[in-house]
Amino acid sequence: MNTSLTPLVEALAPGTPDIEIARATPMRPILSLAEERLGVPAHALIPYGHYKAKLSLDYLASLAERPKGKLILVTAISPTPAGEGKTTTSVGLGDAFNRLGLQTATCLREPSLGPCFGMKGGAAGGGRAQVVPMEDINLHFNGDFHAITAAHNLLAALVDNHLHWSNALDIDPHQIVWKRAIDINDRALRHITIGLGGAAHGVPREDGFDITVASEIMAILCLARDLEDLESRLGRIIIAYRRDGTPVTANDLEAAGAMAVLLKDALQPNLVQSLEHNLAFIHGGPFGNIAHGCSSVMATQAALALNDIVVTEAGFGADLGAEKFIDIKCRQSGLSPDAAVLVCTLRALRFHGGADKTTWDIPDPEAVRLGFDNLRRHVSNLQHFGLSPIVAINSFASDSREEIDLVASLCAGLGVQAVETSHWARGGAGAMALAEALNEQLNTTPAPHIRCLYPDMLPLADKIRTVATEFYGAADIALHPAAARQLQAFEDMGYGDLPVCIAKTQYSFSCDPNVRGAPDGHRLDVREARLSAGAGFVVAVCGDIMTMPGLPRQPAAMRMGLDEKGHVVGLT
Amino acid sequence: MNTSLTPLVEALAPGTPDIEIARATPMRPILSLAEERLGVPAHALIPYGHYKAKLSLDYLASLAERPKGKLILVTAISPTPAGEGKTTTSVGLGDAFNRLGLQTATCLREPSLGPCFGMKGGAAGGGRAQVVPMEDINLHFNGDFHAITAAHNLLAALVDNHLHWSNALDIDPHQIVWKRAIDINDRALRHITIGLGGAAHGVPREDGFDITVASEIMAILCLARDLEDLESRLGRIIIAYRRDGTPVTANDLEAAGAMAVLLKDALQPNLVQSLEHNLAFIHGGPFGNIAHGCSSVMATQAALALNDIVVTEAGFGADLGAEKFIDIKCRQSGLSPDAAVLVCTLRALRFHGGADKTTWDIPDPEAVRLGFDNLRRHVSNLQHFGLSPIVAINSFASDSREEIDLVASLCAGLGVQAVETSHWARGGAGAMALAEALNEQLNTTPAPHIRCLYPDMLPLADKIRTVATEFYGAADIALHPAAARQLQAFEDMGYGDLPVCIAKTQYSFSCDPNVRGAPDGHRLDVREARLSAGAGFVVAVCGDIMTMPGLPRQPAAMRMGLDEKGHVVGLT
Repeated sequence: MNTSLTPLVEALAPGTPDIEIARATPMRPILSLAEERLGVPAHALIPYGHYKAKLSLDYLASLAERPKGKLILVTAISPTPAGEGKTTTSVGLGDAFNRLGLQTATCLREPSLGPCFGMKGGAAGGGRAQVVPMEDINLHFNGDFHAITAAHNLLAALVDNHLHWSNALDIDPHQIVWKRAIDINDRALRHITIGLGGAAHGVPREDGFDITVASEIMAILCLARDLEDLESRLGRIIIAYRRDGTPVTANDLEAAGAMAVLLKDALQPNLVQSLEHNLAFIHGGPFGNIAHGCSSVMATQAALALNDIVVTEAGFGADLGAEKFIDIKCRQSGLSPDAAVLVCTLRALRFHGGADKTTWDIPDPEAVRLGFDNLRRHVSNLQHFGLSPIVAINSFASDSREEIDLVASLCAGLGVQAVETSHWARGGAGAMALAEALNEQLNTTPAPHIRCLYPDMLPLADKIRTVATEFYGAADIALHPAAARQLQAFEDMGYGDLPVCIAKTQYSFSCDPNVRGAPDGHRLDVREARLSAGAGFVVAVCGDIMTMPGLPRQPAAMRMGLDEKGHVVGLT
Repeated sequence: MNTSLTPLVEALAPGTPDIEIARATPMRPILSLAEERLGVPAHALIPYGHYKAKLSLDYLASLAERPKGKLILVTAISPTPAGEGKTTTSVGLGDAFNRLGLQTATCLREPSLGPCFGMKGGAAGGGRAQVVPMEDINLHFNGDFHAITAAHNLLAALVDNHLHWSNALDIDPHQIVWKRAIDINDRALRHITIGLGGAAHGVPREDGFDITVASEIMAILCLARDLEDLESRLGRIIIAYRRDGTPVTANDLEAAGAMAVLLKDALQPNLVQSLEHNLAFIHGGPFGNIAHGCSSVMATQAALALNDIVVTEAGFGADLGAEKFIDIKCRQSGLSPDAAVLVCTLRALRFHGGADKTTWDIPDPEAVRLGFDNLRRHVSNLQHFGLSPIVAINSFASDSREEIDLVASLCAGLGVQAVETSHWARGGAGAMALAEALNEQLNTTPAPHIRCLYPDMLPLADKIRTVATEFYGAADIALHPAAARQLQAFEDMGYGDLPVCIAKTQYSFSCDPNVRGAPDGHRLDVREARLSAGAGFVVAVCGDIMTMPGLPRQPAAMRMGLDEKGHVVGLT
């Protein structure tokens, strides 16, 4: 079984754009690859072109009793705006485990279409640690996000249609909490008024669009156990309140069935391959702030039933992604990680130690030493969950040996192993040391006993306080009166046993994106609480959280196009 | 080669819902069916599941020099709100031709998602004359409409982003003509204000959403010859005007490349099968009023290169659909129909002869005789184009023999053959007489010489007048001053050579949906003109034209859901 990079890809010059590396890879037909590697019969796969497929729900149901592989969570220190490489590490690590002869798949989030045309470009790994077909994964990818957008906006249309015809449910038009969704960065849709133009055109009211990844339906799709659970969660979505404060749900509008119809295909996990022809499950992609930032439960469960090892990532740094992975995704699904990788870059450590965008690529051991405070906090947090993380130093050509040795020695001082990786430049070969270290840990230590940060029965405000004080180093939370009233209302409505989902900046343990390192003694400013009754969590909004991005002055869209062969250019 | 209905489908009771008939049909895998029937190699097909595929653009290009089959246009008399069965006739006729041993495909429009959840239900034929998989065709169908929605809204976001950052193009915010699009019936989005909430959130202005089928991009996709033509048309879209009246295009925003990237897969025609396992190309679905209402040129061209006979339909009655088929689709593409079918029902003839919804299913020869005026006008119009239509009487159980004989005899008086069809009840077997009559005509008469109604060089107002007087029986047009100014401006801008696209009610030759039969001496009230510079036509808006439907009091969505097997219920 040849799982290494093809000579063609090996030979590409350094600095070759991701899309060209991706295109230089002769992909294998996904149906035969999935059958050969995972034993998935062809009838259980729904092809989307020759290189993408979905797994049928019937087949997934048949996997329930299979023994499960080991689950490895890839998380990171507090990131710079450039990102630290969780996705590339997940892909490279998956490739490396396969090189070790362990059947391994990665479980990743689907990229959002909107940001592709803004600044972000593609999001399917990078360098020689990518999943392919890169363009397809970044554009429309099997229609999942479009289906979520459609289901979201169908519910919104049913809400306004109900107001228009009679409002028999007595919805208070000032307390409609279900906005509309679109998978485009469009700031002009953040705050709008709808229903204008007279009585034939609906009831005028304020509204707004969120980007699709911020839709509660995205979170629901990623947390649903099966189609039945999906429909049941959809029905529990709260779309508005009456004047007396009682909630109105999607079930009250008899909307859940039609929404489930729109989502039945999107609920099937997607299979693609890495450049080294290892399988990747890419499914769902909820925001990491107002939602839980993890790929779907169904994909993770399927991957565990079909592999020895499953590598998955969670959004942003470990303060957000790993915490929600454990306290929301694992709590709801029964999943439990067997090991964790904490990704860092020297760039980010320098950044936390005082460097800025103009200097973060220049070796600076003193900044690295100072910035290590951030890493130390994340390690301690992961240990708090019961995990023994291995630190992966995602190396850049500009890194100095002295800095790398320094990080390794500081980690050793914490009793933690640090491993340098070079998967971006070398594919799976660059993550072999990491895979071996993890394999050693999996084989020699007992399975970790994972503890959630707080029990279900703790009051909602205390749950937020627990995360803030035990995970963020905060002295306390500052609960705004409106947020306190909302939390009380949610408890009165019977939602007090839900976990909390902290929506704060990913750049800091605090609410202030400019406070780097490992601040302590601060107060977590909780300005608002939102109930995601279908997804099953209460969002604590801390600081400015944007749920609809804007486009930059020179959007990436202006550089994108098709070449004479019909290939995409400008999607980096 | 067995192309008849399976015994399972034959055995279903009368009145079985379409979706159950569809589900009782064991479909054939589309890749092998397309290879066996059309000789399309597997590498030229992109599978979407096992029963849907797209044809690759490279393969389509390779078909250019192939000899072409005969093209049959299926159109209809002015319809009742219930529809007269153009799609079922097209499917049944295709099946019948295949039973005659002629390799035949149908080219149909894709259904719009939005109306599925309103009143309309599915739109993939009906009874035993359906295309399958029915649910997939009605829901998301290979992502085409979602891609169009995304491309449309990307352009809209780029317009507002341009205003937000600098407005270097000097766009007049009051003259932005590019609205937003969504594939949901949502009246509350018809008239909105956007960009509210302060300077960080865009520039406030009035806006609105059209349903996706009304997007100019839908018309562009259906008229494009290839990917290059698509991108070139996208670039020509006029998004706004400056204060001096000069147009600003998508090219000025450097948007066409990114839009083409979003649309490159949607441009590939879709292949599915009928219940009798004959191939159908289903691709694109522009509105029949503000756009030209025909499936894509690329699908028609591909089908003609791969078949002896191609049966295609055009939206609404022949006054709208057939006129636009000839004057827009054929004019732009060089396509030319070899024969035409004019579908009628006795229900519609009774309606035109004075019956209403409560009586139109009761035999009434006198009403049929009066209503025949409508049919006569359509026959005469089609003859004006150079076609010799055959009238297909799409029969219902409630029809009387006397009425059918009457229609046949009235048609004979016009020198036109009328054939009774029962494809809805019997599949291809029910359209054999129609197929035989057409085959006889194709084999015994010279190919028709098709004449467009007006030359390119005629002034725009005169083009509208020509359609109104020669096709609708109008005495003249009543050109509102605003419309006259717009037409003059379009001519001044160099668009005077474009064809016109009349947006009027489908229920009448006049602008008044209540005037049935074959009115004459009326005035066609042209209230507004719109330029679709990318699609390549000027829309003359006559009467109230709704580009965003609303949901009814009890939307179909409320009855839809999934059964315990995950099958869709309530999609009729």
